[in-house]
Amino acid sequence: MDQIITDNLYLRKNIEIPKKSWTTSEFIEEINKLSYRYHINHPLDKHFMEGKATKTLMQSWVCNRFYYQSIIPKKDAAILSNCDDRNVRQNWITNINDHDNYNEGLDSWLDLGVSIGLTREEILDFRHVLPGVKFACDAYLNFAKMNNYKIAIASCLTVNFANNIHKERINNWPKHYDWLNEESYKYFRTRMSKVKTEKDLALNYVLEWFKTPEEQQLVLETIKFKQDILWSILDNIYIYHYTNFYDNLE
Amino acid sequence: MDQIITDNLYLRKNIEIPKKSWTTSEFIEEINKLSYRYHINHPLDKHFMEGKATKTLMQSWVCNRFYYQSIIPKKDAAILSNCDDRNVRQNWITNINDHDNYNEGLDSWLDLGVSIGLTREEILDFRHVLPGVKFACDAYLNFAKMNNYKIAIASCLTVNFANNIHKERINNWPKHYDWLNEESYKYFRTRMSKVKTEKDLALNYVLEWFKTPEEQQLVLETIKFKQDILWSILDNIYIYHYTNFYDNLE
Repeated sequence: MDQIITDNLYLRKNIEIPKKSWTTSEFIEEINKLSYRYHINHPLDKHFMEGKATKTLMQSWVCNRFYYQSIIPKKDAAILSNCDDRNVRQNWITNINDHDNYNEGLDSWLDLGVSIGLTREEILDFRHVLPGVKFACDAYLNFAKMNNYKIAIASCLTVNFANNIHKERINNWPKHYDWLNEESYKYFRTRMSKVKTEKDLALNYVLEWFKTPEEQQLVLETIKFKQDILWSILDNIYIYHYTNFYDNLE
Repeated sequence: MDQIITDNLYLRKNIEIPKKSWTTSEFIEEINKLSYRYHINHPLDKHFMEGKATKTLMQSWVCNRFYYQSIIPKKDAAILSNCDDRNVRQNWITNINDHDNYNEGLDSWLDLGVSIGLTREEILDFRHVLPGVKFACDAYLNFAKMNNYKIAIASCLTVNFANNIHKERINNWPKHYDWLNEESYKYFRTRMSKVKTEKDLALNYVLEWFKTPEEQQLVLETIKFKQDILWSILDNIYIYHYTNFYDNLE
């Protein structure tokens, strides 16, 4: 791996690198171990799962999270823009289409917003997006722009943990939120069928490209960086709704 | 102004643009009005001023804020890198030197850290820097890299409000924190003598370059963007120390 790759990373310093590489199954296990820091464990996400979210809070979450959704296809385009391997580009472009195709990804998310009383316009123009949410999501896009496509693809491996979060929303939210209708769950349902393919694609590449102990460690640190972004989105929504820090700010 | 400038901005949509330009003094007054959203008004900063910070909290603040300090000369270098005007470059390079010259800016900040029990090493390697603080500070650097140097210089105008924050620390902190010594205040003292020159330089350029109502509004929005970064740093330190959100994260 090129030294430039690690220079651009949010990699912890003084990290202990194992003496020998993990086997494929050990490496997958190490990746899976990071599930504890996926944002499904963020107190605010639990709050949503436990039925404690007001409609206002959910509207705010939908608008802020839409900023993240809107970054995804741009992030994937940045990956293509740094990739000399046509075969990888051909496989990876599916991820752009999944979000950008009309009536898919981004539109399903907008439908979720509309189903809970938002207009498409106010979601699309990002007027409700909090500064810290922009900083976090933009860090993801910039990371993909400024790094080797291989490490940027590794950063997408949070998809490894995504199936559960969609499933839990589909299972738990209807018990609590009667103002959500069938339409509201479309994004989560559609993503559940996509997530496995997307995960397999990213994981297979990562297993093929990252072999040495340093490289494998780099993947774990990259996944953590990406998890921090998702976690930070919820931190910012929490700060806005549960402290008075933004009461006087315009 | 080039349209590209506003495309890269964290500019609010649907903003009302006055029909005619402000006079110079009106424009300065509009800029000064933004002091209410400078981070001196953040509850965590007030907490520090009121003597409620523990040594641990102050150590964390110093380490996180050092990440911001370390971004400043890189941000100013990014401004030079986008600037075709040699005269502006000659004037602006002072800002890099103020922070990068040995025994000045960054070193004074490190001395502050050492005076409260940190090692230079643990400050320099950013091991205590929170993810959200990196996202916010990196947004500032990226903003300077990706935008016209004129608008990037406008973003530096938070210096307009900086004198008070240094003065208040020098006046208030000794009443509360007996573990701070004379050495601890060196950065704040030195900055107080620099801030006026730095502010005058930036402000004079901004008054010269931004004349139309749209341009003037753009300056205000840019200052707000920069204020949001400083505010967000404190949000993240608050979340880390006053919630349990990061207790189980490594």
